[in-house]
Amino acid sequence: MKVVLLLTGKTDEAWIRDGIENYEKRISRYTRYESIVIPDIKNTSSMPPAKVKQKEGEKILSMLKNDDYVVLLDEHGRVYSTLEMASFLRNTMVSAKKRLVFIIGGAWGFHEDVINRADHLLSLSMLTFSHQLVRVIFTEQLYRVLSVNAGDPYHHE
Amino acid sequence: MKVVLLLTGKTDEAWIRDGIENYEKRISRYTRYESIVIPDIKNTSSMPPAKVKQKEGEKILSMLKNDDYVVLLDEHGRVYSTLEMASFLRNTMVSAKKRLVFIIGGAWGFHEDVINRADHLLSLSMLTFSHQLVRVIFTEQLYRVLSVNAGDPYHHE
Repeated sequence: MKVVLLLTGKTDEAWIRDGIENYEKRISRYTRYESIVIPDIKNTSSMPPAKVKQKEGEKILSMLKNDDYVVLLDEHGRVYSTLEMASFLRNTMVSAKKRLVFIIGGAWGFHEDVINRADHLLSLSMLTFSHQLVRVIFTEQLYRVLSVNAGDPYHHE
Repeated sequence: MKVVLLLTGKTDEAWIRDGIENYEKRISRYTRYESIVIPDIKNTSSMPPAKVKQKEGEKILSMLKNDDYVVLLDEHGRVYSTLEMASFLRNTMVSAKKRLVFIIGGAWGFHEDVINRADHLLSLSMLTFSHQLVRVIFTEQLYRVLSVNAGDPYHHE
């Protein structure tokens, strides 16, 4: 089992890249992990959002394998507490799937073809965050959940 | 009305400082705003968490004025959506209070004297985040809510 994080579009700001890198280093202590950035769609300013979502969706689907377990970070997903997310991750990681793929979409969310392919939708909060900041929030939470599942002491930091 | 953010202890990592600064610049376009860092308690490693919370609590209370409207960022608080938070902020900002003070506690949470002083408890998510990352998450959300209330176009970024 490998955990994969698919990001739609490059990470704009250096501080967000540093934040992600900080948590990804810690994640790698617990599991095989890889993050993949799907290149930005070009010339989106002249494109209606639906078209951007469609093109992003095609790219996302082309990165997936048939036996991937796919989880979308989506505001319409189920809102978990940290302990519920730890339980979800534990149960999913023991399943037979080869890759557990979390996907953070672009600024406009996911095309319906991607939603139809997904096995699960997960919401990090009832608050809406920028799809850039969500990258940091998710990697911190993935690290936290993995450390909970490993029985490591709770980190007050 | 001025919005004040009280932070317990210094911000450790450069990327978190950069993230906060990024959103604070945008917040300042919408409202009078100030963030104040309460210095770290010294020699906490030899101190039980209850003692750290008590000392932090005393410092927090010494920074507050009688007519401050005090909101604690606390996992036991009410969980809002972005629009509910926008409505809360709008209603609170038109009240007669001089300062609306949001407080992010230390690693161990708030002493009960601080909780008793608070007018409101607010939770950003059912997920537990580090008290350092919460600083970025909160400033992003405060900026977002202020821009919603100002009627600015929704930011897809």
